[in-house]
Amino acid sequence: MAITVVGSVAFDSLQTPSGKREKIVGGSATYFSLSASYFTEVRVVAVVGEDFTAEHEDILRKRGIDTLGLEHSPGLTFHWGGEYGENLNEAKTKFTHLNVFESFQPKVPREYLDSKFLFLANIQPTLQRQVRKQFDKASLVGGDTMNLWINIAREELLKTLKEVDVLLINDTEAKMLSGDSSLPRAARKVMGMGPRALVIKHGEYGATLFFADGHHPFRAPALPLDIVEDPTGAGDCFAGGFMGYIASQPELTKDVLKKAMFYGGVMGSFAIERFGTERLQELSRKEIDERFKLFRSLTHLD
Amino acid sequence: MAITVVGSVAFDSLQTPSGKREKIVGGSATYFSLSASYFTEVRVVAVVGEDFTAEHEDILRKRGIDTLGLEHSPGLTFHWGGEYGENLNEAKTKFTHLNVFESFQPKVPREYLDSKFLFLANIQPTLQRQVRKQFDKASLVGGDTMNLWINIAREELLKTLKEVDVLLINDTEAKMLSGDSSLPRAARKVMGMGPRALVIKHGEYGATLFFADGHHPFRAPALPLDIVEDPTGAGDCFAGGFMGYIASQPELTKDVLKKAMFYGGVMGSFAIERFGTERLQELSRKEIDERFKLFRSLTHLD
Repeated sequence: MAITVVGSVAFDSLQTPSGKREKIVGGSATYFSLSASYFTEVRVVAVVGEDFTAEHEDILRKRGIDTLGLEHSPGLTFHWGGEYGENLNEAKTKFTHLNVFESFQPKVPREYLDSKFLFLANIQPTLQRQVRKQFDKASLVGGDTMNLWINIAREELLKTLKEVDVLLINDTEAKMLSGDSSLPRAARKVMGMGPRALVIKHGEYGATLFFADGHHPFRAPALPLDIVEDPTGAGDCFAGGFMGYIASQPELTKDVLKKAMFYGGVMGSFAIERFGTERLQELSRKEIDERFKLFRSLTHLD
Repeated sequence: MAITVVGSVAFDSLQTPSGKREKIVGGSATYFSLSASYFTEVRVVAVVGEDFTAEHEDILRKRGIDTLGLEHSPGLTFHWGGEYGENLNEAKTKFTHLNVFESFQPKVPREYLDSKFLFLANIQPTLQRQVRKQFDKASLVGGDTMNLWINIAREELLKTLKEVDVLLINDTEAKMLSGDSSLPRAARKVMGMGPRALVIKHGEYGATLFFADGHHPFRAPALPLDIVEDPTGAGDCFAGGFMGYIASQPELTKDVLKKAMFYGGVMGSFAIERFGTERLQELSRKEIDERFKLFRSLTHLD
């Protein structure tokens, strides 16, 4: 069933130990959409500027992603510059040109409003809530956030969290949001803020799914990869695989959630093999399912 | 089948966010032995001083551990003082009184020499090698080391690694030893130094087993625990569960190694629930196998 994502479609200029790219297509909604597109129908709500051409948009459209909600606004597209050192877990921001993203007011096409699934990628929490309210038919709402909003828009974020079913954040964000350095305790505190389930992403160590109902957690692996060209977008691709797989299933069971954790890890692992969205444009479902099997054998006793 | 461990039997004075303990029994050989004792016959080679009483030794003896190789030497027992802050992953050393451990010359009782399994816990690599040479009947030799030896005794350590089958170290040690910040590459470089298999421990994220023959790695979880009273000894208990389980099996297959990874994680998770060896003195095999099942359900899709 269809999933709508609201987030950023942007340009990235990146340097990693493997090389350098100038002004390639990135952004949370881009990575999420490409990843989810291997599982289900995806609709995107975002804003781009005049420098975002039809050719850029084709990266999404070629994967069948609905770009009716991609607003073209006068000005330039959001452009982020970052650099990764040998420790690929942390990016050093070189510049952030918000451009048209600074005054982004998400406009949701009426055609999207029947989406059963909604993902609020990392944007200002008030905007996330405005979008959330329009999707009263959504059966599952996923969300992301970042340290910036935890620091400067905490009250707004707490209001948004009350309307999110599954939150996907990383270790640092979970500890920051909860004020607790123990992950299981942090998880419980964050779920006390609203979400029924919480995915904490551990980078190269995988991710853990916590349930608010007290069911014991579930840990999914990340693949120990030799070649990591560019870690940008791994978290958004995780979310895309996770939500996309859920949206493709007839029912939301705990087993579906567990498999979704594996698909999240699988899609994150593809994302980082090449720069930007390169690897995500050319995947096949066969490759995805083969890596799923590999992840299973990497962690399963028999 | 019997396993011999050489390492430290010591006193620890510890402070963690959960409390404080003065001069409790610790040391790598202690933690390893207690953990392995739930799986197989254990023999210990270590040195203690005059302040190490029969009551202290009973902690080992009550678990059926052979202490014939526990040398009593004039002077005081090795005594380590450490403190853990909210980040329980790292201890701050307050003092290290090597005492009788400073001139430790492992004396292996003749009765131990038929051991099929040997674990070289974290001691000076030249001493590890001296012990290793005496066990020419050992079918599997495990080893540990630490940043100190990687820094100040690298050449000696490299000689020792040539005679170790399975090395168990943590992320930082693997990166330091290999000079490579990518774990899979670091793993390959370390195995190039001798070991046929390598276990890299990731603390609360579990551990990964790498094989020199190119077989894909295996990741075992750590349990997200609410209560961590004292992380001391977790790594040695992992090694004890890992080697102990292997020693209890008729054959060394890849499946046995994978299960051993789970038992390692299980024993590490018990270790940290209480201060020092408290939890490890009173376990039952039933509790261990229940947690094994829990670890399985924490990571397995069905």
